[in-house]
Amino acid sequence: MKTPCNLIDGRAIAAQVLESLRPRLDRLRARGVQPGLVFVRVGEDPASRVYVERKEKTAAELGIRSLTHVLPESASEESLLALLDRLNADAAWHGILVQAPLPRHIRAERVYAAIRPDKDVDGFHPMNMGRLLIGDLGGFIPCTPAGIQELLVRAGLSWEGAHVVILGRGNIVGKPLAALLCQKAPRANATVTLCHSGTRDLPEHCRRADILVAALGVPEYVKAFMVRPGAVVVDVGVSRVPDPTRPGATRLVGDVAFAEVQPVAGWITPNPGGVGPMTIAMLMQNTVRAAEQLTA
Amino acid sequence: MKTPCNLIDGRAIAAQVLESLRPRLDRLRARGVQPGLVFVRVGEDPASRVYVERKEKTAAELGIRSLTHVLPESASEESLLALLDRLNADAAWHGILVQAPLPRHIRAERVYAAIRPDKDVDGFHPMNMGRLLIGDLGGFIPCTPAGIQELLVRAGLSWEGAHVVILGRGNIVGKPLAALLCQKAPRANATVTLCHSGTRDLPEHCRRADILVAALGVPEYVKAFMVRPGAVVVDVGVSRVPDPTRPGATRLVGDVAFAEVQPVAGWITPNPGGVGPMTIAMLMQNTVRAAEQLTA
Repeated sequence: MKTPCNLIDGRAIAAQVLESLRPRLDRLRARGVQPGLVFVRVGEDPASRVYVERKEKTAAELGIRSLTHVLPESASEESLLALLDRLNADAAWHGILVQAPLPRHIRAERVYAAIRPDKDVDGFHPMNMGRLLIGDLGGFIPCTPAGIQELLVRAGLSWEGAHVVILGRGNIVGKPLAALLCQKAPRANATVTLCHSGTRDLPEHCRRADILVAALGVPEYVKAFMVRPGAVVVDVGVSRVPDPTRPGATRLVGDVAFAEVQPVAGWITPNPGGVGPMTIAMLMQNTVRAAEQLTA
Repeated sequence: MKTPCNLIDGRAIAAQVLESLRPRLDRLRARGVQPGLVFVRVGEDPASRVYVERKEKTAAELGIRSLTHVLPESASEESLLALLDRLNADAAWHGILVQAPLPRHIRAERVYAAIRPDKDVDGFHPMNMGRLLIGDLGGFIPCTPAGIQELLVRAGLSWEGAHVVILGRGNIVGKPLAALLCQKAPRANATVTLCHSGTRDLPEHCRRADILVAALGVPEYVKAFMVRPGAVVVDVGVSRVPDPTRPGATRLVGDVAFAEVQPVAGWITPNPGGVGPMTIAMLMQNTVRAAEQLTA
């Protein structure tokens, strides 16, 4: 059994990405521009609160101004759209992020489509998703797919020519990641198979992967027998499950049964400490770019 | 060797689709609305001319008004964009189609993005591509992918749960077809692998397909050894090659070596006479829908 020297350290690589933004932030500051990133949260979903807090903390460390609007759980879709209208028009904010998940009575697609595409640093506006699909680099790429791409490149691995099997077809990770990696472009050019709840014989698809990306949100779904020895395994999902060692407590687990998969994998991302920090780093990168473009 | 009773007759099925539009056209007419579809061609590419003529002929047969603007090969991008502005504003036209290919000095992406999304019956505007990727049914779906989906459904075959291998990652067929078929939706829910010029061991990927869609534009690329016996083969590409039986003449061939693949395939689309007529039928369907929505 291998020692876990095959870990891809997402925290260290995210720190490199953030460091690479400092000269760009310095140049903006020299022009009197402080990038601004505004968050909107609806209700008190605990995970949403934690995610926004982490993003705000990283923004503060970089000198990116941020502010969070919190609407009550009962807020109407119209009131959220009215707030977005104001933020769209406010030149102090270069990036706008509405934190998922939203309450059920609010249509997420309508909300994402209401953010100005050039401030849509989450990349979920249909214009940005469409530009991603057609390979137009002018749009914003969703942060988790962009972070997964960057993570492996900086770890010295290559997407080029690899057979990438993605588990999960969500709008936040699976589908935009497939669109990103299939492009005829540097850091991409992969052969992508997108698997999901409707896939027959999913383990067999998994075993064919050079790079397996698990973004299902099913705790510890990927077992060792589903991984080709030497394959790269990227664990995106995060679920909260009861902690068997502490009665009444919970712990976070990924979509990969880490203990058994790690010895089989060529490389593997820990979870937490893998993809999560990269998502935040790419959000900062998108925000810096938005500020550059909006003040050019 | 099987007799070719495994042919999927695109002409007959396209005729069914067109027939299904007649009651909708009658209802529009009863409201005093004649759908209008305006074409723009740039230069005298012979294939473009033929494609537009076929589309105009089908429109005329259905009672859809059409008109073709022909700009000279030397037309500037700005003059094309100015024309699109006028057509966007003209209520007589419910659908606008700029025929590909465009001359090299014109940026196709910029042109497609200049068509009003609600008149973009070709579905190439980034807004429509993005809505397709996120599974929002409110946009227009590009006609060839929509036609391929419809063709197999009307032939009694199912995409549900099938492993679909698509060869070719173009913006007109490969990528939007992958986005369409991977959705959690009726007539979709397939596991999709998107292959292309960067794919390693492409024949092996092909042999894994339940449904193999060839949209490479490489004459007779798919050979019998690349097809699993019983698989469904959809031949999208069209190339003009020298005709060995008539010196100096040319003939049209698809991406599939039909004579050797047909006996192996469970079902196969002829080419011509398979996907091509479906593309035109779906264009008419999109145009009827545009007229309905714009006059509702």
